[in-house]
Amino acid sequence: MFEILTTDARARRGVLHTVHGDIQTPVFMNVGTCAAIKGGVSSRELIDIGCQVELSNTYHLHIRPGDGLIREMGGLHKFMNWERPILTDSGGFQVFSLAPLRKITEAGVHFASHIDGKRIFMGPEESMKIQSNLASTIAMAFDECVENPAPYDYVKTSCERTARWLVRCKAEMERLNMLPDTINKNQLLFGINQGGTYADLRIWHMDEIAKLDLPGYAIGGLAVGEEAEEMYRIIDEVEPHMPGNKPRYLMGVGTPVNILEGVHRGIDFFDCVMPSRNARHGNLFTWHGKINALNEKYARDPRPFDEGCGCPACRNYSRSYIRHLIKAKESLGMRLAVVHNLYFYNELMQKIRDALDGGYFESFYQKYRIELAERLDD
Amino acid sequence: MFEILTTDARARRGVLHTVHGDIQTPVFMNVGTCAAIKGGVSSRELIDIGCQVELSNTYHLHIRPGDGLIREMGGLHKFMNWERPILTDSGGFQVFSLAPLRKITEAGVHFASHIDGKRIFMGPEESMKIQSNLASTIAMAFDECVENPAPYDYVKTSCERTARWLVRCKAEMERLNMLPDTINKNQLLFGINQGGTYADLRIWHMDEIAKLDLPGYAIGGLAVGEEAEEMYRIIDEVEPHMPGNKPRYLMGVGTPVNILEGVHRGIDFFDCVMPSRNARHGNLFTWHGKINALNEKYARDPRPFDEGCGCPACRNYSRSYIRHLIKAKESLGMRLAVVHNLYFYNELMQKIRDALDGGYFESFYQKYRIELAERLDD
Repeated sequence: MFEILTTDARARRGVLHTVHGDIQTPVFMNVGTCAAIKGGVSSRELIDIGCQVELSNTYHLHIRPGDGLIREMGGLHKFMNWERPILTDSGGFQVFSLAPLRKITEAGVHFASHIDGKRIFMGPEESMKIQSNLASTIAMAFDECVENPAPYDYVKTSCERTARWLVRCKAEMERLNMLPDTINKNQLLFGINQGGTYADLRIWHMDEIAKLDLPGYAIGGLAVGEEAEEMYRIIDEVEPHMPGNKPRYLMGVGTPVNILEGVHRGIDFFDCVMPSRNARHGNLFTWHGKINALNEKYARDPRPFDEGCGCPACRNYSRSYIRHLIKAKESLGMRLAVVHNLYFYNELMQKIRDALDGGYFESFYQKYRIELAERLDD
Repeated sequence: MFEILTTDARARRGVLHTVHGDIQTPVFMNVGTCAAIKGGVSSRELIDIGCQVELSNTYHLHIRPGDGLIREMGGLHKFMNWERPILTDSGGFQVFSLAPLRKITEAGVHFASHIDGKRIFMGPEESMKIQSNLASTIAMAFDECVENPAPYDYVKTSCERTARWLVRCKAEMERLNMLPDTINKNQLLFGINQGGTYADLRIWHMDEIAKLDLPGYAIGGLAVGEEAEEMYRIIDEVEPHMPGNKPRYLMGVGTPVNILEGVHRGIDFFDCVMPSRNARHGNLFTWHGKINALNEKYARDPRPFDEGCGCPACRNYSRSYIRHLIKAKESLGMRLAVVHNLYFYNELMQKIRDALDGGYFESFYQKYRIELAERLDD
């Protein structure tokens, strides 16, 4: 199912075969929380900007419009008119970061909807059922995501429970995939490594979940408060314990440099709200570093934001025009900025894959870990 | 410059030849206030949805980003990457409806910017200069737009002054069009008829401004508080006094039925924020009347909103999905709704032109003045 085409030290160039088509890795998944990319980008445009995998959020879709409704509409692919792979998260991250009044037990989590306060229970079985209704290509295991730093004892108790939850997730998904009216009977389950910033817990947990022989493994609970160096250290500790023949997903990461560092350390999948969130504040990624579109010096600049960029925004509109739109709070401005940033991220991954294919990843990495960290207009 | 191809009673099928291409009339102009359609629709998409003329607002662009900046960027066409005709209003309507602290004299109007309170003066010469900087295809005369109803004496004084202002507008535009560094030396000036709801003032004013032999004439100061029947009565009174060989523009109008009634009374140009404003509230126009996309009965409806519609929203997305997006306040929902409504308006005009070309406008009018007034889901 996952094929490794070539490697360069720890970096891997692979392809994951799925029922919704192949995913060329390393890959960045484009986040469409509520079955749509923030900023007004449609699924038709995702194709133009090189998106391979769309990522939607189980928690949000469960609350609105409801996973039952999406199931009736034929699943998330039909609902949003997107035929390529979709990954759904488990809902765990949002339950632990958004929902008020939550109470965690061995069974799962009781919490209140952040929309209308309605009491909801979600455990491993509920998360699998919702994701089966959504019929995503890849479902994520239900886990507890602990903020960093957290006390050792709490993290230990939590990641032991997360390991037990994973066994239940696997059993439930196998059951659901066997049911005659399940939309995607080939739904894949990825396990999630937790353990905070404690190497021994991370390694113990990774070894535990590796035994389940799942189609993929993620590192969760990073980029949630700790420094980047701390994150790299944890990846370095955990990576040797991740099955070599399975895709590896670093959840919620990150900046272009974080991604380069992740690939360099053997990671295959990434996702982050950064390109769309930054765009909404006028921060654009370019091959010479990040720039602030609102800077006065772009007011009369007739050039595209990134002169070599082939995205629909850079092909058609000037810095001057896009700056005006963002300043005037015209939604077109945010949309063009989001389109540009997602295109940039997708192109970054394409260039990383090209570098791996071409055997020059190490020099690519050394060059761009410096250049992409620069900010042009500070 | 304006050619009438065929007529049906008072209705006219024409074409206005401009330096930015031909405008087939009757036409609906798509409103992009700040050089962008509200809802995140780009100039590239305006082509897909059949827009012939984009309309931008002089007052808004003067305040932000500034007409001087747009002139430096090569004019509004280059700024927003739109090659087809653009009409700019004069700023008068916004000065009288948006700007606080205004003081009107024979010279023009002193007012405060609604953005930062800065004191601004705008008279006929200033409006022409700004519109020349924007380099639109068609510039509108600077007028006072009086709310309906207003006292007879006030309207009389106001429309006499608006007539004197028009003489100054014409002289200033002729001067500007002769300058060597004017971007569009073929900019056209349309005069605007005023006179509130008083037939005698309307007719006197129309006769006065017709003497200036301008390339087009508008009826302003309607759809600003009076009933539709009152508006139709005024059009019936004024229309015989409008030059028959010049295009006629009913400003700020209106619903699909208002437009049908306008065409039936000899109007050629229309504009209105209604399609985009309605879309943002989930109200969609269809060939069977207006529907509310938020209605619960569409929650699980897999059909497009208008089954015969060829717009990018109806071709790709279901009622269920678009309803979800609008409810979740995803900007994609508003954008798809705006795209649909503008496509509907542009298609309505195409069908009106087809009916005039085909000699069946009267029966088209009789059928759709009833059907388009219906609301499906009330």
